[in-house]
Amino acid sequence: MQNGRLPPGVSARDFARALAAWKASVGARWVYTSDEDLDLYRDAYSPFWGEPEERLAAAAVAPDSVEQVQQIVRVAGEHGIPLYPISTGRNLGYGGCAPTYTGSVVLDLKRMNRVLEVDEYNASCLVEPGVSYFDMYRHLKERGSKLWIDVPDPGWGSLIGNALDHGGGYTAPAYRNHFEAHCGMEIVLADGEILRTGMGALPGAKTWQQYKFGYGPSLDGIFKQSNYGVVTKMGFWLFPEPEAYFSGTVMTPRHDDIVKIVETFNYLENTMAVHGLPSMYSQAYPMTPPTDPELLALHSAPGDLDPAALQAWVERKGLPFWTCSLKFYGAPNVVRALWDAAKARFAAIPGAQFRDGELIPLPLSPEQIARVHKPEFGIPSLEMFYIGARSETSPNPSNGHFWFSPIIPRTGAAVIEANRVIRRTARELDLPILIFSPPVGSWSRAFILVLAMPITRVPETDRRLRAAVRQLIKVCAEHGWGEYRTAPAFMDTVMDMYSYNDHIQRRVDERIKDALDPKGILSPGRYGIWPQHLRQGRR
Amino acid sequence: MQNGRLPPGVSARDFARALAAWKASVGARWVYTSDEDLDLYRDAYSPFWGEPEERLAAAAVAPDSVEQVQQIVRVAGEHGIPLYPISTGRNLGYGGCAPTYTGSVVLDLKRMNRVLEVDEYNASCLVEPGVSYFDMYRHLKERGSKLWIDVPDPGWGSLIGNALDHGGGYTAPAYRNHFEAHCGMEIVLADGEILRTGMGALPGAKTWQQYKFGYGPSLDGIFKQSNYGVVTKMGFWLFPEPEAYFSGTVMTPRHDDIVKIVETFNYLENTMAVHGLPSMYSQAYPMTPPTDPELLALHSAPGDLDPAALQAWVERKGLPFWTCSLKFYGAPNVVRALWDAAKARFAAIPGAQFRDGELIPLPLSPEQIARVHKPEFGIPSLEMFYIGARSETSPNPSNGHFWFSPIIPRTGAAVIEANRVIRRTARELDLPILIFSPPVGSWSRAFILVLAMPITRVPETDRRLRAAVRQLIKVCAEHGWGEYRTAPAFMDTVMDMYSYNDHIQRRVDERIKDALDPKGILSPGRYGIWPQHLRQGRR
Repeated sequence: MQNGRLPPGVSARDFARALAAWKASVGARWVYTSDEDLDLYRDAYSPFWGEPEERLAAAAVAPDSVEQVQQIVRVAGEHGIPLYPISTGRNLGYGGCAPTYTGSVVLDLKRMNRVLEVDEYNASCLVEPGVSYFDMYRHLKERGSKLWIDVPDPGWGSLIGNALDHGGGYTAPAYRNHFEAHCGMEIVLADGEILRTGMGALPGAKTWQQYKFGYGPSLDGIFKQSNYGVVTKMGFWLFPEPEAYFSGTVMTPRHDDIVKIVETFNYLENTMAVHGLPSMYSQAYPMTPPTDPELLALHSAPGDLDPAALQAWVERKGLPFWTCSLKFYGAPNVVRALWDAAKARFAAIPGAQFRDGELIPLPLSPEQIARVHKPEFGIPSLEMFYIGARSETSPNPSNGHFWFSPIIPRTGAAVIEANRVIRRTARELDLPILIFSPPVGSWSRAFILVLAMPITRVPETDRRLRAAVRQLIKVCAEHGWGEYRTAPAFMDTVMDMYSYNDHIQRRVDERIKDALDPKGILSPGRYGIWPQHLRQGRR
Repeated sequence: MQNGRLPPGVSARDFARALAAWKASVGARWVYTSDEDLDLYRDAYSPFWGEPEERLAAAAVAPDSVEQVQQIVRVAGEHGIPLYPISTGRNLGYGGCAPTYTGSVVLDLKRMNRVLEVDEYNASCLVEPGVSYFDMYRHLKERGSKLWIDVPDPGWGSLIGNALDHGGGYTAPAYRNHFEAHCGMEIVLADGEILRTGMGALPGAKTWQQYKFGYGPSLDGIFKQSNYGVVTKMGFWLFPEPEAYFSGTVMTPRHDDIVKIVETFNYLENTMAVHGLPSMYSQAYPMTPPTDPELLALHSAPGDLDPAALQAWVERKGLPFWTCSLKFYGAPNVVRALWDAAKARFAAIPGAQFRDGELIPLPLSPEQIARVHKPEFGIPSLEMFYIGARSETSPNPSNGHFWFSPIIPRTGAAVIEANRVIRRTARELDLPILIFSPPVGSWSRAFILVLAMPITRVPETDRRLRAAVRQLIKVCAEHGWGEYRTAPAFMDTVMDMYSYNDHIQRRVDERIKDALDPKGILSPGRYGIWPQHLRQGRR
């Protein structure tokens, strides 16, 4: 049941030798070559589904230990076979488990799923790449731990994989940026050597998961969104369960209030006075096509949206223009005092109104777990998949999507401007997205918009979609908005936008690539970084 | 007045040519070659003062612009002249303004002292390397800004230099780790090319000081504590002035309480429920030789300190064993609620007592500024220098010192163990430090001990001191404690301790060095990273 695919430039004989060596190393059942098995390594949300450009694996191999990873990497290096490491391969919408470069062998780390350490005193853990958020949650619960993980939505992915792709979650700023919440890495380099970063470089150090920076250059960052090594262990900081959760809602009447809302939120977050990921939305800018005929007419009319018309609609309906929910964690009196302080600041916006949420003492009861938005409480879930699934209101389930996620300034003006520009561009390009929404991500001190681009699996339609998204990437770049992450189909296009000084960033990335992986065997093309022998083929 | 020094391996003729080219670029008055001028580039706190090993500059050159930095670097590359960039060169105790490698030309960035941007809405700034904390403070005050900087103690250094050396301050965790509080860098590479990190790679990006990570590998970390480039701009996040400051003190009766004190502090800091750098101390472990004769006798007796004897002394004196001060920033009701919540947790320690500090509304009045510990309020100061200066109680001013700063776990057990081991080792080595203290630094999730090693400028004594400190570095490494930073005299010794997998960290550091600075002209030997042609000379 051997499939016919070969890694580019590798002879059938050499590939057979490599496969044999890997089988000897990990056991024959953990080396996948049949079409049936390799179908599982396709990207279910690929915008190239079934087309010649679809990125397909030549084989997959699943080691159980760091030593096996070293062996696999050395064999690959000997024969020049590209490897594509994945943790759980669940980042649907950003590439899934398929390689960036067709003919790569997927290095599937799913069997390396051990929780190596949990330190309750210092609230940290050390895990392998195959540990999913569900695994970790179960591990903590079974041991009666009082530590929370910060989980993305959905939660079936890998802690390590999500962090390396720069995913994020919902709790406090120190935890919800998953790469920033890591502390210490172990990496198998392209030549099979093991590097430990931070205090891991000091034999016997007791602070590998406590002090991030070690001594000398901090190397961790270069292993994020790159292809310089295979991360085999990573430490993370965990959130000790707070005493209570509280959410409060601010409503303001006018379109232009967004400027002051974001400014006030910035002050609060920058002074540690608000904790969770906020939600900010307007019924005048709905996430799905509006059901109200008047609003639908406003959104369907040619030209830009008219803020005054939206304002008039909101007033006719007796709605607030903006609704912003803030989330707080801490002792009951602390979260109450924080909300009072927040209200005092937002009260500077004329007409602001407030709705107190419920104070929820922690831990949650099983009944509470059933009704809350689980990620805000560090609980993994797959509930996100109800979007696009078959249901009474949505009889035609979607075929999947990929994400378009530009970074915009954390200002009210940028929220409005990005909505205007993206909406106009989408219309010009006939992109199947009508309406945009205020930020769903606030990491670092910027907002990240996250928009789903629906794939159809109809080649002609998907081809048009891809071309339109490439154009949208360019238009956003012209406005100073770059993507923080993208699917393999667009990795080169996005990297092209980061072009300051004749693409010096990519030139430096590739000098480091050549220094650490001179044969270019690890994830060629990932995030637009190609090994020397493939740079001509940059797409 | 030309001094006789030449960069190693560079002919007098080539050096003269380089000096002429630099003079043409920056103006003759900004190229220093006289002994008189170069005396100012000696490390006033050098542990090699006046000895052959003292690290001395061959010249210094002070550009005023990025273009001039590019020109200087290109000329240096042409002739193989080592350059040693400094910002303000004020990190006394960690090397000052002297190069790591004798014969280097100091690239003094003091004239590049422009505050390029302050964003009040997003609480950030963009500065050049010559901007000191005093400059920045003045800039903000003159413009009526409500933003604070986080300053180290003392505050005459450079924001950029301090961050690149991984210095720290006193306010909230998100600000007091100065490298972590940066957002975006501009770097002149060894070949004169300009790299901008993060969103700086996207031309026209509006989020260079808002989103740290950009797209692809995060390169920023490799320019910390290294020698891969000349940082010419750096963004920082600033702390919007909070409404009030509050400090509360916890006192507990028993030696072993430190375990629970640190655990409680960890919980609070990890749940965002305490903000400032805590102070933790015990009068039984004083920072200076004890004046009380009984305590002096206990500390002077042979062998390890006896916790039971210290406990008995504390009880006879009616003192608490431990005193821990916590600091909070926020709205008055918030800081009060936080302190109440902290007290409720610390009350689990039997016999814990509490002293409420004063609630200080902000901004401070001039009278208040005169009496507070300024760095806790973001105010730069040189008051730290009263230590070791001539005074009534200290008639013999010190000659200076260098710092010994190991990272230990953030646990009570580690505080006690590190005190015991370092004290015993110091005695064995006849190191002029008698007594140690609980942590003065809490960054990341570890403690950093910071101990001054007094230099004498008497070669025989300083030689013994250096040997003893090298031994202390080794003993600490055997216990798993590595330094986070060190003076040039010890950079190789400390790097030697980070030896996991046959020094793979240094081997990777040097592969990156070769990739980015193949001629090895930038700061040879800094943090133990040497260019290829000097690796044999590693000390």
